[in-house]
Amino acid sequence: MRWTDGFIAADWGTSNRRAYRIDASGKCVDEFEDHKGVLAIPEGGFPTAVAEIRERLGDLPLLLAGMVGSNRGWKEAPYVPCPAGLDDLAKAAIRVGDREAIVPGVSYIGNGRADVMRGEEVQVLGAVAAGLVGHEAVVCHPGTHNKWVQLRKGNIHNFGTVMTGELFSLLKEHSILADFLQGPVEPNDAFKRGVQAALDRGLLPAQLFGVRAGVLLGQAKKEDAASYTSGLLIGTDVGIGMTFPLAARVAIMGRPELTKLYAAAVELAGRESIELDGEQSFLAGIIEIAKRIS
Amino acid sequence: MRWTDGFIAADWGTSNRRAYRIDASGKCVDEFEDHKGVLAIPEGGFPTAVAEIRERLGDLPLLLAGMVGSNRGWKEAPYVPCPAGLDDLAKAAIRVGDREAIVPGVSYIGNGRADVMRGEEVQVLGAVAAGLVGHEAVVCHPGTHNKWVQLRKGNIHNFGTVMTGELFSLLKEHSILADFLQGPVEPNDAFKRGVQAALDRGLLPAQLFGVRAGVLLGQAKKEDAASYTSGLLIGTDVGIGMTFPLAARVAIMGRPELTKLYAAAVELAGRESIELDGEQSFLAGIIEIAKRIS
Repeated sequence: MRWTDGFIAADWGTSNRRAYRIDASGKCVDEFEDHKGVLAIPEGGFPTAVAEIRERLGDLPLLLAGMVGSNRGWKEAPYVPCPAGLDDLAKAAIRVGDREAIVPGVSYIGNGRADVMRGEEVQVLGAVAAGLVGHEAVVCHPGTHNKWVQLRKGNIHNFGTVMTGELFSLLKEHSILADFLQGPVEPNDAFKRGVQAALDRGLLPAQLFGVRAGVLLGQAKKEDAASYTSGLLIGTDVGIGMTFPLAARVAIMGRPELTKLYAAAVELAGRESIELDGEQSFLAGIIEIAKRIS
Repeated sequence: MRWTDGFIAADWGTSNRRAYRIDASGKCVDEFEDHKGVLAIPEGGFPTAVAEIRERLGDLPLLLAGMVGSNRGWKEAPYVPCPAGLDDLAKAAIRVGDREAIVPGVSYIGNGRADVMRGEEVQVLGAVAAGLVGHEAVVCHPGTHNKWVQLRKGNIHNFGTVMTGELFSLLKEHSILADFLQGPVEPNDAFKRGVQAALDRGLLPAQLFGVRAGVLLGQAKKEDAASYTSGLLIGTDVGIGMTFPLAARVAIMGRPELTKLYAAAVELAGRESIELDGEQSFLAGIIEIAKRIS
């Protein structure tokens, strides 16, 4: 069987899944996205959830990536340690049946740290394969958990996860600041003040309380609080990213509403950045993996 | 009327209230604590809630401190700006009726920061009045929001609030780490490793994700995660506290289960500390204020 004669690729995460039908020429000819993420699939429900994908996109081989390969997913695909490239991911992909394979995530252990990713590795290495990112580069991949990925020789050499998106959600939904954080977040002056303050480093849990105190004492506008707080969190995040050995430019990959915020923060940190589309990179990466597991 | 002929003092916070009957000699002769904090009192319910205190402790003048003086409390007592001492608090206390007064909180604006406190000021200045803390000192007051208070000439000169307790609660109740944080927190080796890691500063949102990754990759024990994470947060907090000009020893005031954790972290930061009882300090402070408003 040659997977590249036509197959279905899926980026199957915690909350969502996106599936693509790829034809023999490597073109995406059909696709869908829904909220049937891994956490929405009941125990024993993966065969049905997988059959559903084939009903919608065709009876083709299936190459899956993301949390579907975690211990809460369909079948666990153990992490591949850094340094990891497309060859390593393809080699460690696990089979479920003859026509289904799951791409593993990547782990890092070193410098007293441990870290894991599942799903971002396909996008990052896909961007390298597509020539969108150089072989020696840093990729920033914002989301619930932002990833800073250090590439060397085109492989994932090291990476660090920052809980930025989740911290913002926790503060917005459950904290004493909730009432202040309901407005839109924009890369405006308030956001930039937050980034600038956070780049000084190490004061975040104090600066967060200052959001409330500043408004109470008339030193800040309540309508600026959401952007300012996002700036504090993303500025802290970018400060952490700057501890990685950097290429001249940082590639920021993800949804545009997030990449524009990170791009503004990276600029304030004195670095250039380019913004990349995550979906295009995923497709480039998964097609390269499919070629290698045929 | 002389307030010190016998009065009721109350530390009335967001979630709890503690009321004390003080006799003419300045001794606490009766007291109670309940969960009728400010947020539990319905609109217009303060007269009833106050009458209840007198029913339990006697028909005496009432001197209140804490969130009862906020815009969500009985009557707003505007913040007194730093530097603030007991004379300033007494002078700015507001009357509700002839026999009820509310002590204001303290605000700080400066160095691009704004901060507020309500309730801790009575304890901190009370500790100074009682000779438990020197006139040039730093007091650490852990709780939902930890306060670092810089004393100069016996007045509150500057202070900073750190959201440590609230962040730990958010992570424990609502985050991806929730499952890892249900165990007890102790000043053990795991806690100390967390403190040590956090004293390097600026990496907190990355170190938090590392708690999960470390357990997943077998680099850390799940049963250590709560203490380690508390160490990360308290270590970050103490790192912020160390930015205040310090006396030789830090006085740590509050509940013993919290002060022992902060004392361990302060020691790792290379400073000495003493642990103080917050209730005793509150009584010393409120009696001094009562003397001044007679």
